[in-house]
Amino acid sequence: MPPFQRHVFVCTNVRPPGHPKGCCAEKGSEAVRDALKAEVKRRGLDGAVRANAAGCLDACEHGVTVVVYPEAVWYGGVRVEDVPEIVEEHLVQGRPVKRLQIKF
Amino acid sequence: MPPFQRHVFVCTNVRPPGHPKGCCAEKGSEAVRDALKAEVKRRGLDGAVRANAAGCLDACEHGVTVVVYPEAVWYGGVRVEDVPEIVEEHLVQGRPVKRLQIKF
Repeated sequence: MPPFQRHVFVCTNVRPPGHPKGCCAEKGSEAVRDALKAEVKRRGLDGAVRANAAGCLDACEHGVTVVVYPEAVWYGGVRVEDVPEIVEEHLVQGRPVKRLQIKF
Repeated sequence: MPPFQRHVFVCTNVRPPGHPKGCCAEKGSEAVRDALKAEVKRRGLDGAVRANAAGCLDACEHGVTVVVYPEAVWYGGVRVEDVPEIVEEHLVQGRPVKRLQIKF
């Protein structure tokens, strides 16, 4: 099946409660991952787009963190409500969603 | 910290024993992931290269499966013993390891 046109990774790293870095999981990353997978399927993008969970993407302060390859576009503070826009604008139309991009 | 010069994802998906697709975990993906992370650190590549676990990369028959972005090079049948070569040849020298590349 691979390579995919776009490959999306959602950080689903879990840290213990109270950890100073926090983690994407406590900010709802599993729900974001599930929503992304469902939206990719609903839009018939299977094969062209792959959505995966990933370990810690090392951008904890920006969580929920998502990265899209091959263009290496990084999104931060992603919520379930942002998923349809990311899919339509970026994964379908090829226009990254500027308001969600992390400024490193 | 991101974006990274190269971002490596190791499939660590787990399926129940006897599942017809098998899974990368039963082929040793956790050990590959650990070896990759350790080698990246040992070589002082932190910051330039990131190694992450990932969910199912949809190339189960080729496991242990590894993908390197942004160049989207896919490796299959990766063993712990292959890790130093992948790190030196590909992640340091920029020359993908042809013998391990999956032919899709």
